[in-house]
Amino acid sequence: MRTIFWDFEKKALCMIDQRRLPGALEIVALHTHLEVAEATRNMTVRGAPAIGAAAAFGLVLAALESHAQSTALFLADLEAAAVILKASRPTAVNLTWAVERVMKALRQKVIKDQDARLDDLRLVVLTEAQCIADEDVAINKRMGEHGSVLIDDGDTIIHHCNTGALAVVDWGTALGVIRTAHEQGKRLHVLVDETRPCLQGSRLTAWELEQYGIPYEIISDNMAGYFLRSGQVQKVLFGADRIAANGDVANKIGTYMLALAAHDNGIPVYSVAPTSSIDLSLVDGSFIPIEERDPEEVLGLQFHGERVAPEGAKARNPAFDVTPSRLITAIVTENGIVVPPFDVNLRKNIRTGTIAIPGDHKARSYKE
Amino acid sequence: MRTIFWDFEKKALCMIDQRRLPGALEIVALHTHLEVAEATRNMTVRGAPAIGAAAAFGLVLAALESHAQSTALFLADLEAAAVILKASRPTAVNLTWAVERVMKALRQKVIKDQDARLDDLRLVVLTEAQCIADEDVAINKRMGEHGSVLIDDGDTIIHHCNTGALAVVDWGTALGVIRTAHEQGKRLHVLVDETRPCLQGSRLTAWELEQYGIPYEIISDNMAGYFLRSGQVQKVLFGADRIAANGDVANKIGTYMLALAAHDNGIPVYSVAPTSSIDLSLVDGSFIPIEERDPEEVLGLQFHGERVAPEGAKARNPAFDVTPSRLITAIVTENGIVVPPFDVNLRKNIRTGTIAIPGDHKARSYKE
Repeated sequence: MRTIFWDFEKKALCMIDQRRLPGALEIVALHTHLEVAEATRNMTVRGAPAIGAAAAFGLVLAALESHAQSTALFLADLEAAAVILKASRPTAVNLTWAVERVMKALRQKVIKDQDARLDDLRLVVLTEAQCIADEDVAINKRMGEHGSVLIDDGDTIIHHCNTGALAVVDWGTALGVIRTAHEQGKRLHVLVDETRPCLQGSRLTAWELEQYGIPYEIISDNMAGYFLRSGQVQKVLFGADRIAANGDVANKIGTYMLALAAHDNGIPVYSVAPTSSIDLSLVDGSFIPIEERDPEEVLGLQFHGERVAPEGAKARNPAFDVTPSRLITAIVTENGIVVPPFDVNLRKNIRTGTIAIPGDHKARSYKE
Repeated sequence: MRTIFWDFEKKALCMIDQRRLPGALEIVALHTHLEVAEATRNMTVRGAPAIGAAAAFGLVLAALESHAQSTALFLADLEAAAVILKASRPTAVNLTWAVERVMKALRQKVIKDQDARLDDLRLVVLTEAQCIADEDVAINKRMGEHGSVLIDDGDTIIHHCNTGALAVVDWGTALGVIRTAHEQGKRLHVLVDETRPCLQGSRLTAWELEQYGIPYEIISDNMAGYFLRSGQVQKVLFGADRIAANGDVANKIGTYMLALAAHDNGIPVYSVAPTSSIDLSLVDGSFIPIEERDPEEVLGLQFHGERVAPEGAKARNPAFDVTPSRLITAIVTENGIVVPPFDVNLRKNIRTGTIAIPGDHKARSYKE
């Protein structure tokens, strides 16, 4: 089952409510673009590729919602919805990427076919959104194949946040690599960072790994250094919410400290993300906007049945951090494995899709 | 109020039940040394100096429990209790230090005064335990004075775990330094690592800082890197459970990753601990035994009222890690501030108590 999918009967965007997992597997149906923006904000849906695809379908809902009687007004309605959808979360660039891609297809249709009826335009929006979703699955499988050559039989891997099927439309980015390697018969063990404050690791990644039959143990984020330093870990894998032109990676809060600890112990660090997560417009990671979320996500924890923090306690809650590219061993995209110098090779990877690591890995272009 | 104290009326060791805070401030009375060992294991009492003092009073209870009719049998009873108390938690060396100190006083009394009645011996045990507790408070105040010279007006400090009054008999080690600096009128802001899995930061340190009126915000442990990298932090402070001869510091899990992130950003890292936490018998931190606790401490978290991890999930739970001395800027003891080279200066600090950092800090010997 896909994490998000268009329901043609209901004319609704359906998605797994990720806030309810692992306790309950619930599908919610969204009927307006504002509901999509809210579901993105409140993390009913999360994961950079997943919120990108969701925003694309958000435009489909906006197209259905529009009561415009002219192409110009219809376009204006969708431009307004695009602004709202793009603003629903600031850090992952996939949101902007997906929305812009749909809007571009729509604008091109309007330019090329000036007689197009509004329903024709709606169909363009739906087709492009569905295309993004379908491509996402293919891209993930491709990343899985590329990345799996980095994984050895017997590896213990620390994985941060959730980057599995739930973070995308289907399969996964970093967890997709682990799944592919597992399906290739490699025996793996995953140390699952619980990923405070929203616990995407212990809630979502552990739930996925249970289903795939991949052995795992949950650790609290601050334990990674212990396992890295004591020689029990061979690889560190995570996704990305936005990658700057120099290879700096914005990802779920805690990624920087994890990458530092791996680097301090000579353990390879791999970020796995589609090229739609790469933002060449930013020279480095310092320009990536970092979302700060509701402190209640930090404070609302219960322990022994009681709220943890004392009454009146305040908290900070940056949701992402930036890992400098010097700590990243390689970035895996659907076009292959990108190694330093990232400022050169990321551009090549996006353009040609044929940057391979030295060795026996056969790079294949997604655009072939 | 002291965190642990001897109740002469009840002939019991009383202590704050730290598992109940911040929801309830409850005092429990322990009547046997086995209860003390269990209270240490289950973290009713925690913090290296606090469990040391508790174990000393555990011997007082063992002395009262003993039905021995001869000095030899009485000594044997206490030796047996000493073994149990020392084994209750493996990492903090203060436990061994305190138990050995009481046993040494007892043995010396037996040797010097062969006519001593058993009640005389019991008094020696009680006196030595009480002395350890009283000294602990004085030592903490002394560390506060020494360490406070490292703290500047306006500092934002990241603090890990709980090292306040609750971690000792009274005042605190790293948090004692912050308290002293606060009382000197320095305006401070503390970013409180929540300290998964047992949340000593968000439960205990936040509760203490509320009481002292020191401004703070809780962060999840994996956020420290973000604040350090974005220039919002001036100092990192934590305690120590055991310090090896070369300055490697075993402390609450997560300390290593925090120190790494501080070091990566040029932020000073201070470990504050009494000399009773220094174990010169160990060449470096690799010899410090690391306790691995019940995985349920990681798995039992509740989120939105539901257990977080999926059914059947496993977890790892190392309770401490070792921070290599290369990441430590200075170690503060009751004898002053110790700077690298730690292998030389820690020995000097223990022996003479006069190792000062360069500058205007007036080192004073605790043994003067």
